Amino acid sequence: MTNTVMVEKAKVSKINEVDFDNLPFGSVYSDHMLVCDYKDGKWNAPKIMPYQPLTLDPSAKIFHYGQSIFEGMKAYKDDEGSIWLFRPLENFKRLNKSAKRIAIPELPEEYFMEGLTTLLQLDSDWIPQNPGSSLYVRPFILASGTGFHASPADEYKFIIACAPSGAYFSGKVRVLIEENYSRAANGGVGYAKAGGNYAGQFYPTQLAIDKGYNQVIWTDDNTHEYIEEAGAMNIFVRINDTLITGPTSDRILDGITRKSILDIAEDEGIATEVRKISVTEVVEAAKNGSLKEMFGAGTAAVVSPIAGFGYKETDYDLPELTNSYASLLKKRITDIQYNRAEDKFGWRYKV
Amino acid sequence: MTNTVMVEKAKVSKINEVDFDNLPFGSVYSDHMLVCDYKDGKWNAPKIMPYQPLTLDPSAKIFHYGQSIFEGMKAYKDDEGSIWLFRPLENFKRLNKSAKRIAIPELPEEYFMEGLTTLLQLDSDWIPQNPGSSLYVRPFILASGTGFHASPADEYKFIIACAPSGAYFSGKVRVLIEENYSRAANGGVGYAKAGGNYAGQFYPTQLAIDKGYNQVIWTDDNTHEYIEEAGAMNIFVRINDTLITGPTSDRILDGITRKSILDIAEDEGIATEVRKISVTEVVEAAKNGSLKEMFGAGTAAVVSPIAGFGYKETDYDLPELTNSYASLLKKRITDIQYNRAEDKFGWRYKV
Ligand SMILES: Cc1ncc(COP(=O)(O)O)c(C=O)c1O
Ligand SMILES: Cc1ncc(COP(=O)(O)O)c(C=O)c1O
Repeated sequence: MTNTVMVEKAKVSKINEVDFDNLPFGSVYSDHMLVCDYKDGKWNAPKIMPYQPLTLDPSAKIFHYGQSIFEGMKAYKDDEGSIWLFRPLENFKRLNKSAKRIAIPELPEEYFMEGLTTLLQLDSDWIPQNPGSSLYVRPFILASGTGFHASPADEYKFIIACAPSGAYFSGKVRVLIEENYSRAANGGVGYAKAGGNYAGQFYPTQLAIDKGYNQVIWTDDNTHEYIEEAGAMNIFVRINDTLITGPTSDRILDGITRKSILDIAEDEGIATEVRKISVTEVVEAAKNGSLKEMFGAGTAAVVSPIAGFGYKETDYDLPELTNSYASLLKKRITDIQYNRAEDKFGWRYKV
Repeated sequence: MTNTVMVEKAKVSKINEVDFDNLPFGSVYSDHMLVCDYKDGKWNAPKIMPYQPLTLDPSAKIFHYGQSIFEGMKAYKDDEGSIWLFRPLENFKRLNKSAKRIAIPELPEEYFMEGLTTLLQLDSDWIPQNPGSSLYVRPFILASGTGFHASPADEYKFIIACAPSGAYFSGKVRVLIEENYSRAANGGVGYAKAGGNYAGQFYPTQLAIDKGYNQVIWTDDNTHEYIEEAGAMNIFVRINDTLITGPTSDRILDGITRKSILDIAEDEGIATEVRKISVTEVVEAAKNGSLKEMFGAGTAAVVSPIAGFGYKETDYDLPELTNSYASLLKKRITDIQYNRAEDKFGWRYKV
């Protein structure tokens, strides 16, 4: 594959301004970014340029109609300095799945993959090596075409920006099972990583935070009887020794961490079930002691263990386990990601 | 009220470049725009400046999490050259209702009203006087604060931009009653004018267009048995001589045209009902001839009559009426808007 990505290098690197021992999550950006423009009915070849502000007309549709999608992935550097991605083609495929639902033209695979790898090679010094650190990679597409009419734009920008990031908060969280608000409709856009899905979560999440919880467990919008996602993560529940997660649907994001966890659990001989999980079942299991664990799963935190949950004004605590599935699965998945263990699934991708 | 809006005038007006006899809708912009920044926990005083591109960091939350809301209103110029708005405080209140749901800080009323009126006075030459024309006014708020974490931004921009616009397409449309896709969840953000709601409509609307329809009639996401909105308009159905519209809810936008139409209909002695409308009822009424009219209602088109609808692979035609409620109501509402008739409701607002 000949590389067709044009590169305009930054004159000065900002890397010396960054304290790699105290990295926040997702708020310091690397020297370069990739930009690919959709114009006159086609995606043009990607360009890498110094990380810089975007200039858009006030009538650009991104500002009015939420026409945007994104992905979230991480680049890892191993002890030898090699760079790895985790299942990047899955992110590419999901980006195009989101694109279709949000009426954004689908992106050619080579622009995504070549653009991504060229950018990571150029900014490889920005990939931190401290334990738990990584380069958070944010591919996104926004509608730059203009007009005050609610219809798809005729111009778009596909951008990849990178943020060297410390370990995501890895303590346990307390969650609130949502009884009123919801994040996704049947026949809606919940399965897409569409911008609007996230803004809609902010207010209910703030209400939960005000009540002393860290996060919301989303339930189906019709009955609020089935648990669907944990904030912006997929959710797993362990009842006795069975690990359960809900089936993906048009309301639930098909998480890459989720499906990797299912494969690893199977490989570990852990019984798994993919089926609807009712709130009643979880509450009953908490009461009778069979509820051993709950955790969120997603790229940022990998696995985010839940200490307890609130439901209908009652709080339920989960046990403190010494050998949790959560820690076992997190270790196995991150060992693959950081090239510290064999990759029998073929998930690692060398940059 | 002392006016606190700072004004930086455009050096050259673009007005001579515009063909006011052939105005498109919402795609030519006036000389100035209003910008008001939220920073350090507060909204700063609005500034009027030449219409110009926005410069934002690629990590601004608007690009990732769809944190944006908007309003749509029109300014009219009467034969004496006076400028009028229609119920602008309703738009202001709805903007803040949307703001709350999308976790955007609420805007002070005086910044909205003073900003709006000062801008309209400055760009008054841009308000067209041709029949059916008006200045389309677009207030919107976007998250300019940065960070790759799905949480509310700490900085925002409130902007008002204006587009002189010809009459909106006023022919009849054919619509498809949606059986699979939906625009809003129970407990979701459908009642807010949040950007993400609109991007989610594009793909299902395109599918309907591909089948030969102009627009989608949205149904509830759970049963698809109740009709809720017509594209980005509220929906009215006339069965025999009764005019029916659905109740507002957390899935349906509380349209200003809708509530004005209800008041005018009552004033005209037309029987109105605000209640759920089932698809079955509409299909039955179409079959037995009691379905006289259907129309969408919204600021852009005012009233958009429907010629027929498709449902479950069958097409239904509506009768051609000489004295339709649609044309009566449209005339009465636009006569008030353009200051051609008495305003017994106190809806007109002099700028
Ligand atoms: C709503 C939602 N659910 C689940 C996930 C987890 O997906 P992944 O494991 O691919 O990061 C994400 C993204 O991180 C998400 O935004
Ligand atoms: C979804 C939706 N429904 C209805 C309407 C009609 O509201 P209004 O009459 O206030 O313009 C709008 C906005 O135009 C809308 O976006």
